[in-house]
Amino acid sequence: MNGADALIATLVANEVTACFANPGTSEMQFVAALDGVPAMRPVLCQFEGVATGAADGYGRIADRPACTLLHLGPGYGNGVANLHNARRAYTPIVNVIGDHATYHRQYDAPLNSDIATLVKPNSIWAKSADTPESVASLTAEAVAASYGPPGGPVSLILPADSAWLPASGDPVMAQMPVRPAPSGPAVEAAARALKAAKKPVVLLGGQACRAEAIKEAARLQAAGITVYTDTFIARTPRGAGAFAPKRMQYFGEAALAELEGVDLMVFVGTTMPVAFFAYPDRPSVLVPEGCQTLTLAARNEDSVAGLAALADALGGPKEGPKQSLKLPDAAPSGALNAYTIGASIARHMPEGAIVCDDSVTSGAGVAAAAATARAHEVLALTGGAIGIGLPLAIGAAVAAPDRKVLSLNGDGSAMYTIQALWTLARENLDVTVVVFANYTYRILNIEMQRTGAGEAGPSARKLLDLGDPNIDFVSVARGLGLPAVSCSTAEDFEKAFAGAMAQRGPMFIEARI
Amino acid sequence: MNGADALIATLVANEVTACFANPGTSEMQFVAALDGVPAMRPVLCQFEGVATGAADGYGRIADRPACTLLHLGPGYGNGVANLHNARRAYTPIVNVIGDHATYHRQYDAPLNSDIATLVKPNSIWAKSADTPESVASLTAEAVAASYGPPGGPVSLILPADSAWLPASGDPVMAQMPVRPAPSGPAVEAAARALKAAKKPVVLLGGQACRAEAIKEAARLQAAGITVYTDTFIARTPRGAGAFAPKRMQYFGEAALAELEGVDLMVFVGTTMPVAFFAYPDRPSVLVPEGCQTLTLAARNEDSVAGLAALADALGGPKEGPKQSLKLPDAAPSGALNAYTIGASIARHMPEGAIVCDDSVTSGAGVAAAAATARAHEVLALTGGAIGIGLPLAIGAAVAAPDRKVLSLNGDGSAMYTIQALWTLARENLDVTVVVFANYTYRILNIEMQRTGAGEAGPSARKLLDLGDPNIDFVSVARGLGLPAVSCSTAEDFEKAFAGAMAQRGPMFIEARI
Repeated sequence: MNGADALIATLVANEVTACFANPGTSEMQFVAALDGVPAMRPVLCQFEGVATGAADGYGRIADRPACTLLHLGPGYGNGVANLHNARRAYTPIVNVIGDHATYHRQYDAPLNSDIATLVKPNSIWAKSADTPESVASLTAEAVAASYGPPGGPVSLILPADSAWLPASGDPVMAQMPVRPAPSGPAVEAAARALKAAKKPVVLLGGQACRAEAIKEAARLQAAGITVYTDTFIARTPRGAGAFAPKRMQYFGEAALAELEGVDLMVFVGTTMPVAFFAYPDRPSVLVPEGCQTLTLAARNEDSVAGLAALADALGGPKEGPKQSLKLPDAAPSGALNAYTIGASIARHMPEGAIVCDDSVTSGAGVAAAAATARAHEVLALTGGAIGIGLPLAIGAAVAAPDRKVLSLNGDGSAMYTIQALWTLARENLDVTVVVFANYTYRILNIEMQRTGAGEAGPSARKLLDLGDPNIDFVSVARGLGLPAVSCSTAEDFEKAFAGAMAQRGPMFIEARI
Repeated sequence: MNGADALIATLVANEVTACFANPGTSEMQFVAALDGVPAMRPVLCQFEGVATGAADGYGRIADRPACTLLHLGPGYGNGVANLHNARRAYTPIVNVIGDHATYHRQYDAPLNSDIATLVKPNSIWAKSADTPESVASLTAEAVAASYGPPGGPVSLILPADSAWLPASGDPVMAQMPVRPAPSGPAVEAAARALKAAKKPVVLLGGQACRAEAIKEAARLQAAGITVYTDTFIARTPRGAGAFAPKRMQYFGEAALAELEGVDLMVFVGTTMPVAFFAYPDRPSVLVPEGCQTLTLAARNEDSVAGLAALADALGGPKEGPKQSLKLPDAAPSGALNAYTIGASIARHMPEGAIVCDDSVTSGAGVAAAAATARAHEVLALTGGAIGIGLPLAIGAAVAAPDRKVLSLNGDGSAMYTIQALWTLARENLDVTVVVFANYTYRILNIEMQRTGAGEAGPSARKLLDLGDPNIDFVSVARGLGLPAVSCSTAEDFEKAFAGAMAQRGPMFIEARI
């Protein structure tokens, strides 16, 4: 047994059983050790941003971490953007970052870099296992740390000699942290404030948007409290059977207009809402002037217990409102747009589907139609770094092989991690990919106006438009091993999407909107 | 005029005239300001790793920095791997990283992160322009800092309000640094040691491998000194008319076997040679036991002056040896492999071509044939982070529009930054791309043995092989807008490559080896 064996034994003993990887020479012992542990599923990604985004999708659905295997500083660097998103989703992930042998670091070989500094901004825990004996215990520590609460990505740096030198193969069990419930006084204070307020709202985020928490939040709604969620949520139920809270609007001035007159905001699993970006002469903080704020449950606390206790304190009924099923009667027809696409998705998406949403400006159409569709869950882009929709779907499908996964992507978003299509094909994952092809960064055309930057001239347009040439996504997807079809009308899409839902395995649909 | 105008005016005044970009909302003022300055060429990349690799290629060929425009921490993160390579190539690059408005940072909006820490490992200078008045002077400081010596990537963080608030539009001129010549005593010491040694070698790296330095090194060879270069070189001439030094072998034990008996190594523009990776029971340092070492010119010093002075001190002739032209007589035939491909490349590559090499195990065949081909230059992967061959070619072609550019890539390497193909198409760059498709990470199959990790079983093979499914690169390339052809025989490749050399504009060749 060597350090790499100890690492994998400890991961598997702590239920870390999926590894999204792109290894190099310094990770060969880890790769070899996999053959001895069939419980660990290795999934090759031809770019590390796919691996980290997949680990995020896996963690959101499995509620336990996957590991990644990354090649020194540059391999980790390629994964940074989706680890930023995972940090913002509070998803547990155990990143294993291979490094040079401890004695080789001093020579500053070409792949050497300051990994410890590089990982800091997106790690809630980071250590280097500089001896083979330390590997198992640090691995257990890493797994435990990834759960937080709240959870997040951790970084375990594994020097090559710690992997290849002998070590005990006995796994070390992680000490799992507990999420404390909010205190009685905190619940009472929130109940008192809500009763006293004229127009209060409760704002849910993170764990408070999960299915079990949303049920309790519905009881607040039944007790007369308006319930909102954050704009972008790591994982939440949608459609029939689930309570549908309002959602904070993306643009700050619209959010504030909607909240006019609100005199109390109670935060559950989240913090003060702020604008996604700053703009000249527009607000950063999305709390109305004079509105009081109060936290029922911090992100590290148990929002489910907090919401249940609050609903009890307010005399809420045992059950709150639930969305009833309402599917579009007729197949959509005519021009293809986000709304006709949404109608087809609502009509055919099966119960239990998982929607991985990186569709930017096209998302609203799907969200509107899917609100009353069969029960499903939505994983959103929590950190604003586009390029997550395809990787998330890989991870979700590995975590939940019996559920249909939808990956919805803007064309600009899809291109960031287009390599993910190959992994979908290789692993034969039950994922239907939709790319909304409008051949532009549509959101930036809107933002250009909002930032006061004026009209785009020829140079600016070169940076906002994705045409010239238009990408033929069907050709790209087929080249990467997927069956693929292009749709230009609502009828085309209806047929393609219904077909995708009726079969298993990966399918790619280009929606030319 | 606002801060963004001041930034671009100062960049252009200091001859920074190419911008490889993927902007977001926080960069809209920069984008808008581009329209007022047609001297700045904006090049959109659909992924930031393409942008940073392109800036590296540009800087290596233009000998002045390009700028990048990156969207906050995640945008920079996507560019990290190729900035690692650029740092190892000592290439000047000015990264402009948009950030939230200064007053908005405190609210920790979804795209917020610790950019200052993230940029540290791969920046030789990093500052944030936190007021509009500071933008122009910090931009000039950034440009100057990027030149080193030795050069490297610098990071200028640009908060959105510093870009949109009023600022003077007067550009600030950068104070360009000077590369000092090695001292007289250093030259004399090297000359004395070389005369006294029995079997000395001179090892060149970095600036000492550029055309003007290689000419002086040839004079040392003529004076009886064996000249080596580092294994991976940022930019060096090859083929007819250039002196061809030996090259340090990649595998440490082979390098040491070749250097057996060497009793003196003199470093010029480089430092002590070390193995790329550590392996159990193999050496890290590639200097024979008992061999003395000595530095003639450090990386920050003028290697050309140092080599010239040393050649004079040793009584070398005015000119040293030069490679003569020798092209393969006959078109290659039969099975397609790296050697038949190398023969076709040598036969048809025009004088002045720039070869961007990310071909990993397939590179040796091309290097062997091209050694006596028409005069050209080679840009290699200096930092070991694959995925540079396509981006480098974009930058080289933008910097030298009159030279033919070749981009040679392993299939695994090409996939890392495959989005680059779209930029080649959009900008209609005169680049011929070759992808060596062997459907495996061949180097890792070799390294698996060398690290003592044993034979790959089924799990390990899943992480080393790129087949199942084999990527159809022609379909991918066409989807991204390029003319593309697949070759399975030497005859196919000869025809395709000759055709590519006879035309202008981008061309993609899949070589199924």
